[in-house]
Amino acid sequence: MPEFPADSVGLVTPQTAHFDDPLDLACGKTLPAYDLVYETYGTLNAERTNAVLICHALSGHHHAAGFHEADDRKPGWWDAHIGPGKSIDTNHFFVVSLNNLGGCHGSTGPVSENPATGRQWGPDFPMMTVGDWVHSQARLADRLGIERFAAVIGGSLGGMQVLQWALSYPERIANAAVIAATPKLSAQNIAFNEVARQAIRSDPDFHDGWYNEHGKVPRRGLKLARMVGHITYLSEDAMGSKFGRDLRSEDLNFGYGVEFQVESYLRHQGDTFSSSFDANTYLLMTKALDYFDPAAVHGGVLAKAVKPARCPFLVVSFTSDWRFPPSRSRELANALIRAGKSVSYVNIASPHGHDAFLLPEPRYQAVFAAFMSRAARELGLEERS
Amino acid sequence: MPEFPADSVGLVTPQTAHFDDPLDLACGKTLPAYDLVYETYGTLNAERTNAVLICHALSGHHHAAGFHEADDRKPGWWDAHIGPGKSIDTNHFFVVSLNNLGGCHGSTGPVSENPATGRQWGPDFPMMTVGDWVHSQARLADRLGIERFAAVIGGSLGGMQVLQWALSYPERIANAAVIAATPKLSAQNIAFNEVARQAIRSDPDFHDGWYNEHGKVPRRGLKLARMVGHITYLSEDAMGSKFGRDLRSEDLNFGYGVEFQVESYLRHQGDTFSSSFDANTYLLMTKALDYFDPAAVHGGVLAKAVKPARCPFLVVSFTSDWRFPPSRSRELANALIRAGKSVSYVNIASPHGHDAFLLPEPRYQAVFAAFMSRAARELGLEERS
Repeated sequence: MPEFPADSVGLVTPQTAHFDDPLDLACGKTLPAYDLVYETYGTLNAERTNAVLICHALSGHHHAAGFHEADDRKPGWWDAHIGPGKSIDTNHFFVVSLNNLGGCHGSTGPVSENPATGRQWGPDFPMMTVGDWVHSQARLADRLGIERFAAVIGGSLGGMQVLQWALSYPERIANAAVIAATPKLSAQNIAFNEVARQAIRSDPDFHDGWYNEHGKVPRRGLKLARMVGHITYLSEDAMGSKFGRDLRSEDLNFGYGVEFQVESYLRHQGDTFSSSFDANTYLLMTKALDYFDPAAVHGGVLAKAVKPARCPFLVVSFTSDWRFPPSRSRELANALIRAGKSVSYVNIASPHGHDAFLLPEPRYQAVFAAFMSRAARELGLEERS
Repeated sequence: MPEFPADSVGLVTPQTAHFDDPLDLACGKTLPAYDLVYETYGTLNAERTNAVLICHALSGHHHAAGFHEADDRKPGWWDAHIGPGKSIDTNHFFVVSLNNLGGCHGSTGPVSENPATGRQWGPDFPMMTVGDWVHSQARLADRLGIERFAAVIGGSLGGMQVLQWALSYPERIANAAVIAATPKLSAQNIAFNEVARQAIRSDPDFHDGWYNEHGKVPRRGLKLARMVGHITYLSEDAMGSKFGRDLRSEDLNFGYGVEFQVESYLRHQGDTFSSSFDANTYLLMTKALDYFDPAAVHGGVLAKAVKPARCPFLVVSFTSDWRFPPSRSRELANALIRAGKSVSYVNIASPHGHDAFLLPEPRYQAVFAAFMSRAARELGLEERS
């Protein structure tokens, strides 16, 4: 018998929902049919009022909590916050976590077959937006018989989906938790994404996106993209205290092998990622980030854009996050306040940069748990344990 | 007759000094013979007491001021600060500006011939350190009959050379101006350099550094390296106010062509650089940055490392510089104070990020000019105009 921690959701099995109704996309194209891979943790109550949707970030997927195999060394990516007694308490909530369209972990994306050609979609896979994802997630909710989510929750790009839920389906979301996100990318954010895209697209093994048909993987480009990404996920201080200027060996070798620990870390992160993630998916996800800007059609006035929202918001930022710094979360919180919405904004002291949203930090956990407890109480959810 | 601005040094011609005495390097190797390309502005006085040395940064060179041709559209890279009546006033000072060893603008470097093989040095060119450069610069001073510089001045990597001058040749430097620099790179700084290096070295056209012999240039890698660099040279605010989220055309095109202005800017910067700069030089310059850490041999105590310095220092930082932020300059200034040195530290309000050290900014110019005027007065330099 596998022994999982008492606060783990334990062994989980991904499921697949197939959709035959075409999905019209913001780019003007239509996805004729598609699969969404998802996991659930906890039990949907009879009234179907206790469902929570988890939206994933740039390189995330459906496996947010628990273990796929008894001997898995690592749990899902948000296991710190999902489980019995955790912030998103599976004693109260039925948690749904999916892989977004365009992803490379089972949901329909560039590595899936294009029914029109019988080939992989590859670079022909249509561009996705945060709005498209939210529509597809709403269809998954329909399929699961969930009329209204008790909460929609996400960090980073996931937080953008949460905000979009509150605007696209205000009647279907009871609470929104937008964590380490931004209402739109800055020019610098876009610049970093563009470097990542150029790294991938200029890799000779990219073959205009048809690398799989050429039996190639643009590993060099993916590695560089991930290395750049990692620099923006960690704070300067976190990098400094983790690696400082520590050398791998005793002395400088005056060559281009690894000399400093931080070089070794980045190369390892890049190598691991480049052998597991699809390049077309990475491109598409960075574009979805760049495009997100709900205020754009409201003359740039975010307080106007958020008018449709009805639910209470929890907005969380982290002091050392320089990818989406606290000022971006404050921008959102202020717009919500100006629009007369209910919003709690908390800036959590953390040295871990953008990555802090993934980690357990007592004050973060306390704030998060309190928001979810209130949600559970107000929705009349009973503790099942 | 060419018409240059009244405060320009006008038409200048680079000169070459050849050295036959071998130079022992920190890496353990010896450079048997070498050329240094340099320019001078102003006139060396009879006492040879008015010489100022300019040290260049990562992608810099000897052409700091004036024009090479009558119809040059752009003057040298530091023309804003060098000329008659400017901060480094050529009415008082005789300015020497060189291309460092390992460079690709005329001084001996990877594109020069290796006398031992008759081939280009290429990747066999020995690794240079800031200390090596300073030694080679001292030999150039000998050649020019300059016993002691009235000032040694530089920004960024140039500022590190200035600091090293004060430690290696305290009796040969009367004043030191260390601008937008740092006493050592942070882990994050090294991480950005490592991404740049990996971009270049993983370009299939790099050929282990022998690209010229293969008739290739690792343009893709150089372009990516420069794009990453540019993000760190500009402040987030400068990028925001320069580009914001402005689109190139009216609408999103949902493709991977240029959509946002910032993408266009970065690609252009990268393309221009990749067709003019040598990849091996870029690698070498980033390593010289990484290695610089005068405190390392003093247990990390900078105040001990700076003990040998005798000259007054001007230390300048810029509020929005996030590559080498004000805290790094303060670290140097505090160490100098702790060591009992004379130091003026100024943090200049500027929105332009690291690039601010290249630009004219009234308060920066005033501080810089005041420091140089005091130097001129104390050295008894007469105005020649």
